[in-house]
Amino acid sequence: MKYTIFGESHGMAIGVVLEGVPPALELDLEQVQRELDRRAPGKNSLSTARKESDTVHVLSGLFEGKTTGAPLCMVIYNSDQHSTDYDSIRYTPRPSHGDYAGFLASLGCNDYRGGGHFSGRLTAPLVAAGAVAKQLLAGRGVWVGAHISAVYGILDRAMDDPEELRALAGSSFPVLDEAKGEEMRQAILEAKEAQDSVGGSIECAVVGLPGGHGGPDFGRNAEGIFSQYLFAVPAVKAVGFGAGVSFAYLRGSEANDPFTVENGQIRTKTNLSGGVNGGITNGMPVVFEVTLRPTPSIALPQESVDLRTGEEVEIEIKGRHDPCIVQRAVPVIEAAAALAACEVLGI
Amino acid sequence: MKYTIFGESHGMAIGVVLEGVPPALELDLEQVQRELDRRAPGKNSLSTARKESDTVHVLSGLFEGKTTGAPLCMVIYNSDQHSTDYDSIRYTPRPSHGDYAGFLASLGCNDYRGGGHFSGRLTAPLVAAGAVAKQLLAGRGVWVGAHISAVYGILDRAMDDPEELRALAGSSFPVLDEAKGEEMRQAILEAKEAQDSVGGSIECAVVGLPGGHGGPDFGRNAEGIFSQYLFAVPAVKAVGFGAGVSFAYLRGSEANDPFTVENGQIRTKTNLSGGVNGGITNGMPVVFEVTLRPTPSIALPQESVDLRTGEEVEIEIKGRHDPCIVQRAVPVIEAAAALAACEVLGI
Amino acid sequence: MKYTIFGESHGMAIGVVLEGVPPALELDLEQVQRELDRRAPGKNSLSTARKESDTVHVLSGLFEGKTTGAPLCMVIYNSDQHSTDYDSIRYTPRPSHGDYAGFLASLGCNDYRGGGHFSGRLTAPLVAAGAVAKQLLAGRGVWVGAHISAVYGILDRAMDDPEELRALAGSSFPVLDEAKGEEMRQAILEAKEAQDSVGGSIECAVVGLPGGHGGPDFGRNAEGIFSQYLFAVPAVKAVGFGAGVSFAYLRGSEANDPFTVENGQIRTKTNLSGGVNGGITNGMPVVFEVTLRPTPSIALPQESVDLRTGEEVEIEIKGRHDPCIVQRAVPVIEAAAALAACEVLGI
Amino acid sequence: MKYTIFGESHGMAIGVVLEGVPPALELDLEQVQRELDRRAPGKNSLSTARKESDTVHVLSGLFEGKTTGAPLCMVIYNSDQHSTDYDSIRYTPRPSHGDYAGFLASLGCNDYRGGGHFSGRLTAPLVAAGAVAKQLLAGRGVWVGAHISAVYGILDRAMDDPEELRALAGSSFPVLDEAKGEEMRQAILEAKEAQDSVGGSIECAVVGLPGGHGGPDFGRNAEGIFSQYLFAVPAVKAVGFGAGVSFAYLRGSEANDPFTVENGQIRTKTNLSGGVNGGITNGMPVVFEVTLRPTPSIALPQESVDLRTGEEVEIEIKGRHDPCIVQRAVPVIEAAAALAACEVLGI
Repeated sequence: MKYTIFGESHGMAIGVVLEGVPPALELDLEQVQRELDRRAPGKNSLSTARKESDTVHVLSGLFEGKTTGAPLCMVIYNSDQHSTDYDSIRYTPRPSHGDYAGFLASLGCNDYRGGGHFSGRLTAPLVAAGAVAKQLLAGRGVWVGAHISAVYGILDRAMDDPEELRALAGSSFPVLDEAKGEEMRQAILEAKEAQDSVGGSIECAVVGLPGGHGGPDFGRNAEGIFSQYLFAVPAVKAVGFGAGVSFAYLRGSEANDPFTVENGQIRTKTNLSGGVNGGITNGMPVVFEVTLRPTPSIALPQESVDLRTGEEVEIEIKGRHDPCIVQRAVPVIEAAAALAACEVLGI
Repeated sequence: MKYTIFGESHGMAIGVVLEGVPPALELDLEQVQRELDRRAPGKNSLSTARKESDTVHVLSGLFEGKTTGAPLCMVIYNSDQHSTDYDSIRYTPRPSHGDYAGFLASLGCNDYRGGGHFSGRLTAPLVAAGAVAKQLLAGRGVWVGAHISAVYGILDRAMDDPEELRALAGSSFPVLDEAKGEEMRQAILEAKEAQDSVGGSIECAVVGLPGGHGGPDFGRNAEGIFSQYLFAVPAVKAVGFGAGVSFAYLRGSEANDPFTVENGQIRTKTNLSGGVNGGITNGMPVVFEVTLRPTPSIALPQESVDLRTGEEVEIEIKGRHDPCIVQRAVPVIEAAAALAACEVLGI
Repeated sequence: MKYTIFGESHGMAIGVVLEGVPPALELDLEQVQRELDRRAPGKNSLSTARKESDTVHVLSGLFEGKTTGAPLCMVIYNSDQHSTDYDSIRYTPRPSHGDYAGFLASLGCNDYRGGGHFSGRLTAPLVAAGAVAKQLLAGRGVWVGAHISAVYGILDRAMDDPEELRALAGSSFPVLDEAKGEEMRQAILEAKEAQDSVGGSIECAVVGLPGGHGGPDFGRNAEGIFSQYLFAVPAVKAVGFGAGVSFAYLRGSEANDPFTVENGQIRTKTNLSGGVNGGITNGMPVVFEVTLRPTPSIALPQESVDLRTGEEVEIEIKGRHDPCIVQRAVPVIEAAAALAACEVLGI
Repeated sequence: MKYTIFGESHGMAIGVVLEGVPPALELDLEQVQRELDRRAPGKNSLSTARKESDTVHVLSGLFEGKTTGAPLCMVIYNSDQHSTDYDSIRYTPRPSHGDYAGFLASLGCNDYRGGGHFSGRLTAPLVAAGAVAKQLLAGRGVWVGAHISAVYGILDRAMDDPEELRALAGSSFPVLDEAKGEEMRQAILEAKEAQDSVGGSIECAVVGLPGGHGGPDFGRNAEGIFSQYLFAVPAVKAVGFGAGVSFAYLRGSEANDPFTVENGQIRTKTNLSGGVNGGITNGMPVVFEVTLRPTPSIALPQESVDLRTGEEVEIEIKGRHDPCIVQRAVPVIEAAAALAACEVLGI
C-alpha cells in the first residue's frame, strides 16, 4: 500500500490516492470521517478559528461498500479560504516555515497561499488514508493509540502500559494525567495571548504487531520505515523509539529488556526497545515519541528577507493560526503510524 | 545511488554493492580504507579486542581508477573469528539484541554466530559505501563532520558552528571539549570494568548542501530520507533535526530562525531547524543528532528464554564486546549521512 | 515523475496524479484537452457510440498556470453511463477481458460495470499525463509520433524516417499510405458488421532523445522502462524495438547498424536497433512497435462460465463497443512513450 | 526479492546479490551449478570457444544449507580472459553492440574489455539468481520451461501444451521438432562459416501460477513485470504474450479464449492470451516469446567511427564469439521468467 497526497491549502481540493489497498475490506466511511473530525480545527480556543468542513468524498476504488483493490482516491474540497491574507508573504518568507525552501525547490512557482502544498491542512488526507490503514490493521488485531507526552516542557506522566491509551481514543486532548493536561492547555492559551506558539511531543503505540517483521537493512528496517512516515508529517523534528534519547543516559544493564514467558508467550519484562530490535518487530508494542516544533506561524513581528530585492524586512503574519498543533497532530501521528505498520506487515 | 549490504559477521565475507554510482569519479581507495580504519576495533581499551583487518577489495565498477557507472562491489573478507564463542546463544537470545527478532524473521534459520547479518560488523561496508558518497559530495563542495555529543549523560559542549567539526576529522574520539571527552572515556572504562556498557549520542552536520532539495511529501522529504539511512545503522534509536527534542520545550518566538542576508546570500541567523524546512533543504547545514543505545552485549548475567524449551534461563554472554560503540559509530553515522545527502541531491 | 491512475468506467470520476513534475512548466491545458479529444470515442463509425466529454479538471499542482512541483492531480468526471448494460456480465466473465482475472484478484469485489478499473476508459487519464510529459519533452527538443502500422493483417508501408510522423500529428487515423488506411477502415467496418472486432499494431518513434541514457541493468534498462509503460496500456500484447521480431530472420551482417558521421555527429546509417543498444539510448530515434489484440468485447455469442454455479454458459455482450481500438490507441501509446522517455531521461 | 548484478567480463569477478530471499529455503547449490553449466559456452561448435568455469561461490545469506533471509550474494571469479583481444575496440565501437551507448553513458570510462558490464557473460549471475527463484517456485508447484522457437527464420513447430516443455529440460538445444532443430544448427554453422551470426526466438512458459496475481496498473501489471525482466537480458529486442504479434492479424472471435470447466476448475479452451488478462494472471500458463537479435559481434569487416578523431573507420572484430546465442540464452530467459514470476507472486 502506498499513499500519494495532493492538493494545496487554498486550491480546489486536497486528497489522497491509496494504491495497493487489499480488496474486500468493508470500508467504514463514518470512521474515516470521525478521524478527520478529530483533526479538524475550529473546535475550541486552542486551535485556529479557521473552519474546515473536511468532508471526504471517495472518487474510486470502492464498490458496493467494499474496496476493490484498485486505487482508492479520497478527496476533500476546499472552502472558507481567506487567500488574500497571504498576499503579503509571497516574497517575504515566514521564518522556519516551508516558504523559502519551497520557493527554492519550485523555482519561485509554489502556491504560497496558506502554505500551499506545505500547509498543515494537507494532513487531512493523511488522516483519511490512515483511517483506512487502521481498519486494515483492526482486521489483524492491531490498533494504534497515542497521548500528548509534552507541551512546552510540561510532561504527561509516564505510560505504564500501552493499554492505557485505549481509554483516550475519543479525547480531543488525550493525556494520561488530566492535571498535566490542564497545565498544557494553560500554556497554549498563554502562548496564544502572547501572539506566540508552543511545541510539544506525542507518544504513540502500535499494539498487536506480531514479531518477525522488518529487517536490519536499509529499506526493510522497521524503525526506518516508521521514521520515514513520521517525518513526512509537517512539524515533526525528532523521532525516538522506546527509551529514545534517554538511551544516551543509560548503561546496558539498565537499557536491556529481560526476556520472560507469559502465558506461554515470549515477552520482555520492560519495553525500552520500543518493540523493535535489529530493525525487526519483537512482538512487543511498537512505541515511539515524536517531537513537534512550535507552529512557525506566529503573530509577533519577525525578521525576513524580500526575495525580490534581497533586502532584510520585518514581517507580521496575518491570518488565523494554531498556537499549538500538538493536540491536533495526535490523529495525524496515529495515521502515519498505521500506514507505517501496514508497510512493515507487508500490507 | 542505492546501496545493498551483504554478509555475516562470521561468514566468508561482508560487502556492499553500490548501484547508480556516477561515472568518471576518480575513486581514492586509500581514503576508503582510511574511513574503514576509523571504524575498526581493537585500537584501544575503549573497544572490543577483536581485530578486524577490514581490507577492502573492489570486485567491479572500477576501471583504470575511475568509476564506470556499473555497480560498484566492494568486499571485505572475514578473519579472526571466534565462532565457538557464540554456540551458547543460538537458542538463548541476548536481551535487546537482534537475536530473537532475527530468529522470528528467519524462521529459525539466522546465522547466529556473532550476530550474523545483524552484527555491528556490517557497518564496515556501510562505511566503505559512505566513503564513495563523501568523494562524490566533495566534488560538489559538500562535506560531512560529526562529534560525540554525549556518553552516559556526559554532554559535549554545544557546537557553535559546524565549521568546528573540520578540526575533528582525524580524531578517534571526536569531541569539542576535550575535558568532557576525558570524562566520557572514564565512563566507558568504568562500564567496561563493571562488565556493562553505556549509550550516547552523535551530532552530525552536512555542510554545503544547496537549498531547494527534497520535498514535503513522503518519499522525497529530506528529513525522512536522512532518518531512513540513520535508523539502518544498528543501535540508533532516536534521530532529531536541529533543536530536535528540545522543540517540545520552546515557543515559536524562540524556535524560529530569523532570516538575514550575508554577503548577498540569504541565510538564517540561527539554525534550530537543522537546515530543513518543509522537508526541503534551506541552504543552511543539515544538522542532526542520533542517539545510540548502550551495547546490548554485556558480560553481566541476564534473563533470557530457551527457544527450544520455552523456559526462562539466565545467560552470560561470552566473546569480546565494545563497552561503548558511540566513538566507533562516528564514521558510520557520517557514512549514512553522506549516502542520504547523495539521495537528497539526486545523485 | 511517476503517475498513478485511479477511477472506474462507471464510477464518479477517473483521474491521475503525477508526482515529481518539474516546477515552472507553463502547462498548456488546451493541448492536454486536444490529446484527450484525439482519444475520445463517438467521433465516427469506427469506434463505440459512447460519448465521453472527457473534460479535464486540474485539482492541484498548478498555480498561476505553472506547475509547482507538487503532485499534479487531473480529474475527468464520468457521464453518459449505461451501467445496467453490464449487469449480465457480473458473474459471467467476458472471454479474454480482464473480468475473470479481476474477479480473482479482487476476491469478487471488482466494479464490473463497464470493466471498472480495467476499462479502456482509464487510458484517458494516461493520455492527460502523457500530454504533460510531451510538454516537458518539447522543452528538451524531444517529440513523439506514431502511425497505425497494421490492422487485421493490412500493413501500412514501412517508415523511411521518423520525420514522416510529424505530418500525421493531427490525424484521427494516422497512416503513411492512405490507400492502406482505407483498406484498414474497410476491415474495421466489416468486422463491426459481423459483430466482431480486429487487432492491429502501432509503430511509434521518440525523436530527439540524446544518447547515453539508461543502462544494461534491470530497472535502468531503456527498453525495459519503455516496455513497462507500454504493457500498462490495455490490449497491448507485444512490444518490439527496431526490427523487433524480424531479428529472428536476420543475420548479424544484415541486422547491425553501421556507424557513420553526419555533420560532425556520430549516427548509424540504419536504425534497426530502434535507438537502444545495451539498454542505453544511442542518440538515434527510439522506435518500437506495439501489437494490440482485437477488442475482446464482441457482440457474437461466446462461451463463459457462471462464477456462482460453476456451469458453462453462453453469453452475448451488450453495450456499445469499439470494433477496433487501434486508431484510438495511437495517442495512448504516444502518451505512454512520452512518460517512459521522461523516466529514461531522469525527468 | 530483488536482484542486483555486478561485475565485468574481464574484471575480477561477476556476481549477484539477491535481497528479500524468503528464509528457510534449503538451497540446492548443485542445481544452481547445473543451470550455470547449461549456459556455459565452449561445449560445442555452436558457441564461442571461450571456456568459462563459472563456479558459483556463495558469500552470504546461506547458513547450514538454508537461506537466512539476509541478502544472498553469489560470486563467480573470472578466468580464461584474452583482454588484449579487445584493445582495438576501445575507441572504435562495434556496430549494434553496447560499446558506443556505454561510452556515452559512462563519459568514456566504461570497461571496454569484452564488453565489460555489457557482456553476455553477465547473464551467468542472472542464471544463478534464477536458479534460486526456480527453487522457490518449485515449492509452490510452479515450473518454467522453454524451447527455441526460431533461428534465422527456421521455426520450431507450434507448442500444443506447455507440458511438452518438461521433456526438454535437460537439452542443450531444446526444440519440439528435432528435424527443425537440425536445420537450425545447420544455419548456425553456416553463419559461423560465413563469419556471420544469426538471430532467433525463444518461447517460454511459466506453469502453475495461480490466477489473480498482478494488476492492470503500471508497476503491478504482470506483463509489464515480465517484460522488464526479459528486456534486461542482452540481445532481447521483442517480447510478446500468447499470440503476441499475431493478434494484429486476428479478429476478436478468433483471438478470444473461450471459458470452460475442467475437473471443477475454470480454464480457457485456448490460451492465446498467454495466461494474462488485464495485467493479471488468469490461472493458465504464462506463455511468451522473446526475440533475440543476431550476435552483433561478427568477424566480417564493419563500419565504425574512431571516437578520438571522429573519423569513419573499418573494423574487424577479433576474439571468440557466438555465431548464435539463442541456444545459450534458453536458461537465461527461464531465469528471468522465474524471477519475474516471483515478483508477480509477491515473493
